[in-house]
Amino acid sequence: MRALRKIARGPGAELVEVPIPEPGDDEVLVRVHGASICGTDLHMLDWNEWADRRVRDVPMTFGHEVAGAVHAVGDEVHHLHPGAFVAAETHIACGHCTTCQTGRAHICENLRILGVDTEGAFAEYVVLPAQNAWVVGEGIDPDVASIMEPFGNAVHAAFGTGGGEDIATNSVAVIGCGPIGMFAVGVVRALGAFEVIAIEPNGYRRGKASEMGADVLLDPTEVDPVAAVLEQTKGVGVEVVLEMSGNERAIDQGTRMLARGGRMSLLGLPDASVTLDLNDQVIFKEARLQGITGREMFRTWQQTTTLLSTGRVDVTPVITHRFGLDRWQEAFDTTASGRSGKVILAPDPEATGHTTGHTTG
Amino acid sequence: MRALRKIARGPGAELVEVPIPEPGDDEVLVRVHGASICGTDLHMLDWNEWADRRVRDVPMTFGHEVAGAVHAVGDEVHHLHPGAFVAAETHIACGHCTTCQTGRAHICENLRILGVDTEGAFAEYVVLPAQNAWVVGEGIDPDVASIMEPFGNAVHAAFGTGGGEDIATNSVAVIGCGPIGMFAVGVVRALGAFEVIAIEPNGYRRGKASEMGADVLLDPTEVDPVAAVLEQTKGVGVEVVLEMSGNERAIDQGTRMLARGGRMSLLGLPDASVTLDLNDQVIFKEARLQGITGREMFRTWQQTTTLLSTGRVDVTPVITHRFGLDRWQEAFDTTASGRSGKVILAPDPEATGHTTGHTTG
Amino acid sequence: MRALRKIARGPGAELVEVPIPEPGDDEVLVRVHGASICGTDLHMLDWNEWADRRVRDVPMTFGHEVAGAVHAVGDEVHHLHPGAFVAAETHIACGHCTTCQTGRAHICENLRILGVDTEGAFAEYVVLPAQNAWVVGEGIDPDVASIMEPFGNAVHAAFGTGGGEDIATNSVAVIGCGPIGMFAVGVVRALGAFEVIAIEPNGYRRGKASEMGADVLLDPTEVDPVAAVLEQTKGVGVEVVLEMSGNERAIDQGTRMLARGGRMSLLGLPDASVTLDLNDQVIFKEARLQGITGREMFRTWQQTTTLLSTGRVDVTPVITHRFGLDRWQEAFDTTASGRSGKVILAPDPEATGHTTGHTTG
Amino acid sequence: MRALRKIARGPGAELVEVPIPEPGDDEVLVRVHGASICGTDLHMLDWNEWADRRVRDVPMTFGHEVAGAVHAVGDEVHHLHPGAFVAAETHIACGHCTTCQTGRAHICENLRILGVDTEGAFAEYVVLPAQNAWVVGEGIDPDVASIMEPFGNAVHAAFGTGGGEDIATNSVAVIGCGPIGMFAVGVVRALGAFEVIAIEPNGYRRGKASEMGADVLLDPTEVDPVAAVLEQTKGVGVEVVLEMSGNERAIDQGTRMLARGGRMSLLGLPDASVTLDLNDQVIFKEARLQGITGREMFRTWQQTTTLLSTGRVDVTPVITHRFGLDRWQEAFDTTASGRSGKVILAPDPEATGHTTGHTTG
Repeated sequence: MRALRKIARGPGAELVEVPIPEPGDDEVLVRVHGASICGTDLHMLDWNEWADRRVRDVPMTFGHEVAGAVHAVGDEVHHLHPGAFVAAETHIACGHCTTCQTGRAHICENLRILGVDTEGAFAEYVVLPAQNAWVVGEGIDPDVASIMEPFGNAVHAAFGTGGGEDIATNSVAVIGCGPIGMFAVGVVRALGAFEVIAIEPNGYRRGKASEMGADVLLDPTEVDPVAAVLEQTKGVGVEVVLEMSGNERAIDQGTRMLARGGRMSLLGLPDASVTLDLNDQVIFKEARLQGITGREMFRTWQQTTTLLSTGRVDVTPVITHRFGLDRWQEAFDTTASGRSGKVILAPDPEATGHTTGHTTG
Repeated sequence: MRALRKIARGPGAELVEVPIPEPGDDEVLVRVHGASICGTDLHMLDWNEWADRRVRDVPMTFGHEVAGAVHAVGDEVHHLHPGAFVAAETHIACGHCTTCQTGRAHICENLRILGVDTEGAFAEYVVLPAQNAWVVGEGIDPDVASIMEPFGNAVHAAFGTGGGEDIATNSVAVIGCGPIGMFAVGVVRALGAFEVIAIEPNGYRRGKASEMGADVLLDPTEVDPVAAVLEQTKGVGVEVVLEMSGNERAIDQGTRMLARGGRMSLLGLPDASVTLDLNDQVIFKEARLQGITGREMFRTWQQTTTLLSTGRVDVTPVITHRFGLDRWQEAFDTTASGRSGKVILAPDPEATGHTTGHTTG
Repeated sequence: MRALRKIARGPGAELVEVPIPEPGDDEVLVRVHGASICGTDLHMLDWNEWADRRVRDVPMTFGHEVAGAVHAVGDEVHHLHPGAFVAAETHIACGHCTTCQTGRAHICENLRILGVDTEGAFAEYVVLPAQNAWVVGEGIDPDVASIMEPFGNAVHAAFGTGGGEDIATNSVAVIGCGPIGMFAVGVVRALGAFEVIAIEPNGYRRGKASEMGADVLLDPTEVDPVAAVLEQTKGVGVEVVLEMSGNERAIDQGTRMLARGGRMSLLGLPDASVTLDLNDQVIFKEARLQGITGREMFRTWQQTTTLLSTGRVDVTPVITHRFGLDRWQEAFDTTASGRSGKVILAPDPEATGHTTGHTTG
Repeated sequence: MRALRKIARGPGAELVEVPIPEPGDDEVLVRVHGASICGTDLHMLDWNEWADRRVRDVPMTFGHEVAGAVHAVGDEVHHLHPGAFVAAETHIACGHCTTCQTGRAHICENLRILGVDTEGAFAEYVVLPAQNAWVVGEGIDPDVASIMEPFGNAVHAAFGTGGGEDIATNSVAVIGCGPIGMFAVGVVRALGAFEVIAIEPNGYRRGKASEMGADVLLDPTEVDPVAAVLEQTKGVGVEVVLEMSGNERAIDQGTRMLARGGRMSLLGLPDASVTLDLNDQVIFKEARLQGITGREMFRTWQQTTTLLSTGRVDVTPVITHRFGLDRWQEAFDTTASGRSGKVILAPDPEATGHTTGHTTG
C-alpha cells in the first residue's frame, strides 16, 4: 500500500510503497477513507524541535485524525466486525494505571499517540487498537468522521473538566480560531452560550468563526482584545474563555478578560513558559484555569456524535479541502497557508460520494 | 476608647483615644474581645508598596480578624441583639452586583475590606455591617472565635471552588505553613485526606504543621520538594496542592508535584507575576488551578463553626500569643518573628476566662 | 385602587376598592403592569382543600406572578428607585436560617409566598420586599416580564440542582405541558438538548409544546408513554425527565422512561403520596430524583433574563391571553379551560404598547 | 475441588467435588482465600421468590465476595500474573454499551453478576474476568480483602453519585446497620462527618455501629426515628441519609428526617413498591434521592483501598466469624442469626496467618 512516511530525522516525507500491516490480537485493520492534517503533522513534516525531541522511531508513517472502514480484526477482538465505519481516538491508553482505573484514560500515565508513537494514518490502511475504534453510526458523513478527533477536542474544551454547566446562558470567548477554535465556536453555540466572541488575527479564520456562529469578531492586531471584551460585557468579562491559540500573550489576555469566578480552559500549547498575573487575575477573581487535552474516553465521543449527527453543529464550513494522497505536498502547503480549515488526505479521492461542497484540491 | 491607628501614610501606628463609634442603620457596634494580627496588618504597619497603593484614607484604625459581643445595633437591624457573641466576616459585599446575586458575595465586584477600606478592629469597639456579623454559637472559645476568619480561609481553600470532593482518601500538599497553612493541615486531616505533606522552610512552623497532623514535613531549603513529593507518592504526585506561600517558585513547584487531573488552590498572594510551564504541568496533565480568596458567605462559616465547635480541628497549637492592646508593638514583633502562630490583641487582656494554655505575652 | 380579593374562606373573589398600600422600610411599592394567573390562583379562587389548609388570613388580595414599575420605595431601600421596571421573585426568604446562609434562600426554612402569605398582585399596586424585586433590564417585553416567575421555574427545573450539565447533547422528556412544561420545552432546546419529547394528554397543549420546539409529541391517553420513549431512544431511555404534571401515575412512568444514571426533576405537585418501584427504576439504575421548587435566588433570574432578552427562548406562543382586571372571571375561566397558555391580568389593559400578537380577551 | 453448589431450583445447597475450572482467554483463575456471605447468598440458599426469578442456571456454585491469589491467567491476560493477591469486583460489565462507554460500567446495560449469572466463589477456586480482579496491594489483611466488595458498597453510597462533597462537616444518618451499614458508619466518620446517627432495631448491630464510630444510636422500635433525628439536629434534619435497610417504612422515614436540600442515597433493596410523600418531603425541600448499586469501576476500589490500607477505617469489628467450607451450614446460620457481622467461608481455614481477633467458628 502507499504510505506517507518520515524516512529520516529531518524535514520532509516520502510517499512510498509498504506492505499492508497486520492487526495484532487486540487490534483492527482499517481501510482509510480520509485522514485530516493536524498542526502536529506539520511539525513532524518540518521536523521542528518538538518533533526531534518527541518522536522516537523513524522511518514511520504519520497522521492520526482518521476514519475508515474496518477491514480485518485481531483474534481477541469480539465486538467489531469488518465493514464497520470507525473514527480513531488517537490517545492509546494502558488501561491499568491510576488515571485509567479512575475513568480518565485520556490522561493515562503511559499514554501513546497514534501516528507519533505508533504507525499512523496517512496511508491506505492503518492499524488501531480495537478499543480506540469508535463506531461512527448513522448521520455522519465519512469526511466529517475524519475530523471527529479534533472536533472532539473542541467539545471536550467546551464541556471542560466540570461538565460544561457554565456555557448555557453565559458569554464565551474563543481565543485562536484555527480549525479547533472554529469548531469550538459552533459547539458553544449549540450548548446555549449567550454570546460568543471569537478572537483571531487571521481574517480568513475570523470569517470561518463567523460562519460557525460567532456573535463578535475581534482582531487582536487591531484592537486590545481585553478592553474590547470588557466593553462588550459591560465591564464584567466573559464567564468562559476557551484558549486555542497557545500564544503566551493571548493566554495572559485570557485571564484578564475573564469574569470573577470564570473558567479558562487551556488547549492551545504554548512553546514556552507563560507569565501570569495570578494575584489580580486569578486569586482575587477566584478564576479557574484548567488544562484540556484529548477527549474523555468515550463520553466526549458520544457528545461529538450527537452534535454532528443531529446537525446541531454543521462543520462543513470548516472542512475546506480534500486531496488525494499523491498530492500530499499541496495538502500540507494548504494547511500551512492560513487560508484553510481542515484539509483531508484521501487515499482514494473518488470515494467521497457523501460529501460535497468543499474544494477538492 | 483606645484604638491602634495609622496616623500618616508611612511606617508606624499610634494607640490613641478616639470616640466610641456609632453604628449606622444596618450596622452593629461590637465590643472587641480579641483581634488577631494578619500579614496584611504587618504590611499596613510597615506601609509597604501594597499598602500605599491600596489604602485610601488615613488616619484610620486597622485590624480585621475580630470577635466580640454585640453592644448596640442600628435601627434597621432586626435579627441581632446586644450580647450576641459574633465574629466578623471581613469581606463587605454590595449585595447587588452580578456575583453577589449569584451567591458569590465573597468576590463581589464592589468589595470592601474591614480595616482596610473601613475603620478596623484593633480597638475597644468596632462597627460591622450587620450582615457581616456571624453568631459564633456554643462550643467555640472566644479567642478561637477571633481566628475564625483566617481559619475560614483555610477551610475555603480546602473545599476549593468544587466542593472538596477530592480531599477524602487523597494525598494533599500544603505549601507554606504560616497560620493559614497550619490551619489547612488540620482541616484536610479532618476532611479525610489520606496523607498530608507540609512544605515550609521555617522549622518552627514545620513543628506546628506537625502538631496539626501533617504526615510528612519537607524543608524546601534542604530537599527538592518536587522530587520529594513524587518519591513519597510513588511518582504519581498529590491530588491536591493548597498553595499558601505566595512564593513564585513554590507556585511553579506546586504545579510540578500535582498528579494528573489534580487541583491546586492558590491562596497565597505572589508579589509579582508568576511564570509557569503550562504545557507539561497543566495542559497535558489536565491540572486545575483555582484562585481562592475570602470565605463563601456563609457556607464556609458554617463549615468553620462545625470543625471548631466539635473539636474535629483543634487550633490551640496555632494560637500562640495574646497581648493587651497597649503592648501592640510586642505583638507585631512577635507576629513578624517567624516563631509564632496567631497573635491576638485583646483590649481587655484579663477577659480571657475561657482560653488557657497559650503564652500570654 | 382596585384589587381582586378573597373576601371569605370559600369559593369566589371580589374586585373591590382598597387603599393603595404603603411600602415598609425595606419594601417597594410597584404599579402593576400585568400579573399572570397561576394554578395556585385557581386553587385559591375555588378554595380547594389545599387553599383551606394553607391560607391563613382573609380578606386578602391574591396573585403573585407580577411585573411593573417601582412607584415608591421604603426608607431602608437604597438600590432601587421609582421608575425601575421589576418582576417579582415570589419566595420571600428570612435571610438568616441555615439554608439562606448557605445560598439556598429559595428553600428558606421560614419561607413565605407572595399572594399566599402576603397581600398579592391582582391589583393596581403591590408591595414587594425590596430584595424580591428583580430589575428586568432591556430587551424583555413588559408582558413577558410578568411570566418570568413561572418561566424561572422551568429554567430552574432544567438546570436542576446539579447545574444542568446533563442537558446538552442528551435526550429530555417533559411530562405535563401546562405553561411551565411549555416553557421547559423551549428552555431545554436552548440549552442544547439533543431530542425533546413532550408528553401531554391535552391536544392544545401538545400543539404549544410543538411550537416551543418539541421533537416528539406523545399523548399518554393514546400510547404507553414509557414504551414510546424507550422505542424512540432505542431502549436506552431519556437522560433527563422534567416532571411538570404532578400526576402520580406520570411520576411513576417518569422513573421507567429514565436511562441508567438519569435524572428526574420533580416540579409538579402530586395531590397524594406516590408509589414507586425504587428497586428496578431507581436503585439498580442509579437514577437521581430531585425536588425542584421556586428559583435559585438569583442565579435562575439571571439565566432567565439571558434566555428571554436574547430571544434564545421565544415565549410569545405561550402568552395567549390578556384581560383587564374587571374581566377577571373570564381570565380565570380561560386559564381553567385547557385551551390557553399564560393568561395575564392587566390593571390598565391599554398599557401594553410593547406586546402584540396575542389575543386580548 | 470442593464447591458449594445449588443443585436444584429450591432450598438448599451441597458441598460437592467438581473439576477445577479453566480460565478463558481474558480470565484469571483465583485460589480462594476467603469468600464472605452476602444477603444475596442467603436468598439463593433459601431460594426465595427473587432467586427463582433471577437465577437462570442451576447447578451452579454461588458466592461472590471473594479474595485470593491468582493461580493462572488466560492467553489474553497480560497485566496480571500468578501470585498476585486480588479481590473481585462482582459486576461484570460488557465494556461496549453506552453506560460502559461513559465511565459508568457498574450500571452496564448488559450487567452480569459473579455467582449469580456465572459460577461463583464458595469453592477452592474461582474464575474471574481479568478486568474484575483488583490487585489488593500492601497493608490490607487477606480476610479484609474478602470484604472489600461490600465495603465498597458503603464507600460508593457515602460518596454518592455527586462525589461526597456533602459529608464533611455535615450530619449523616445511616438507616439499617447490617454489615454494609456498619461499614458506612466508619466510612462517613473517616470522611469528616460532623455527627453520625445510626438507626437499627437489632441491639447487636447497634453495638457494632457504635464500635464503628456512630455518635447516636436509635432503635426505631423504641423511638420515632424521625422525631429523634429532628430533635438531635435542632429541627433541621440530617444533610445525608444512607439507606441500607431496604425497609419500605424506613425509606419513607429517611425522606422525613432529611434537611432541606439534603441527599438520600438508596442502597437497601425494598421487596415491594415504596410510597413516598414527594410533595412535602422531596419537592418543597428540594431533596435529592439517588439509587446506589455496586461500586464505581474502579474509583471506588481505589478509595476503598486507601481507607482500609491506612487504617482510616478499621473493619475488624465487623468481620466477626470465619468458617471452613465444610462448615458452610453453620456459617449461613450465623449470618442469618442477626448476631454477626461479616462471616467468611475459607476453603483452607488454617490459611489465615494475617488476621486475628475474630471468632473462628
